[in-house]
Amino acid sequence: MHRSLTLAACCLLVSATTLAAEPRGNTFSRHVDAQGTISLPTDFRSRWTHLGSWVVQQDGAPGQGFHDVYTEPASAAAYRKTGQWPDGATLVKEIRSLQSGALTTGPGLWAGENKVWFVMVKDRKGRFAGNGNWGNGWGWALFDAKNRSVNASANHSKDCMGCHVPAQATDWVFVQGYPTLKP
Amino acid sequence: MHRSLTLAACCLLVSATTLAAEPRGNTFSRHVDAQGTISLPTDFRSRWTHLGSWVVQQDGAPGQGFHDVYTEPASAAAYRKTGQWPDGATLVKEIRSLQSGALTTGPGLWAGENKVWFVMVKDRKGRFAGNGNWGNGWGWALFDAKNRSVNASANHSKDCMGCHVPAQATDWVFVQGYPTLKP
Repeated sequence: MHRSLTLAACCLLVSATTLAAEPRGNTFSRHVDAQGTISLPTDFRSRWTHLGSWVVQQDGAPGQGFHDVYTEPASAAAYRKTGQWPDGATLVKEIRSLQSGALTTGPGLWAGENKVWFVMVKDRKGRFAGNGNWGNGWGWALFDAKNRSVNASANHSKDCMGCHVPAQATDWVFVQGYPTLKP
Repeated sequence: MHRSLTLAACCLLVSATTLAAEPRGNTFSRHVDAQGTISLPTDFRSRWTHLGSWVVQQDGAPGQGFHDVYTEPASAAAYRKTGQWPDGATLVKEIRSLQSGALTTGPGLWAGENKVWFVMVKDRKGRFAGNGNWGNGWGWALFDAKNRSVNASANHSKDCMGCHVPAQATDWVFVQGYPTLKP
């Protein structure tokens, strides 16, 4: 009974996410077209839920910069209730340059100019078989600040999975850095 | 004419903020009672706008930790339009412990357990003269993770202004770390 209620609550939240999604070309995500092409969301900083942030300082490291991660409010609420990402959930990791300086609180780091965005879109139905941007239950995309309109990655196995392998047990998401997901 | 329109838009946004504020004991802020006692907001991580984050690594520095800063969506929207904080705007700076480790993106830092919260509430009317938590156009509060229900500061001049002096020209807020406020 409890399990049924949990599933019902999950379905309601998934529906809410889908309803808010303003689909373009399919009924699944406003950020994915009928061919599986992923676009960069535009309103995540002002309207979405902040999951958490990361800082990678080492020069030359693949993720050097200040990372801020966001998802739709309904997707975060669903995860807190079920421990699962609902179909169509979108994660955006915005990476900015690192700024540093002497602050009154101590030597500090903060975020500067945009560098890149990583986007993941949850796909529970295996919609885009054969499309290199889709696999392992997600769509994967990379957008560069110099050209925000094109996914710079054609192959998620080559461009994305290498970094995400340590998070396989948590559906490829590094949830340990996201306090907002704790129930 | 343009100035009038801008002022009208500003007033509308201020009204929207006030309407959303669910006042308790006054008509100004849901986080301030009639005596000027400030309480810690509870839903900022899931429902508010993330302005930006800071990291202070140095052991013993007054702000050591991972800082995430939030405000109400309407307050952020008003600031983007006018460059001013509307009356009743609330800023919450959540400070967590620093976690660190080897990540696939390079050696990284992220946020751990709660330490403290700093809260500022914009007051454009000088409502609480003689109350040490109010001055310089804001209410000021500090909450410790060990006791979230009591403002641990009795005197903002002593406990808050020392760190905020460098931000006087931007109404005591370190806006350079908040990309979400850029128009």
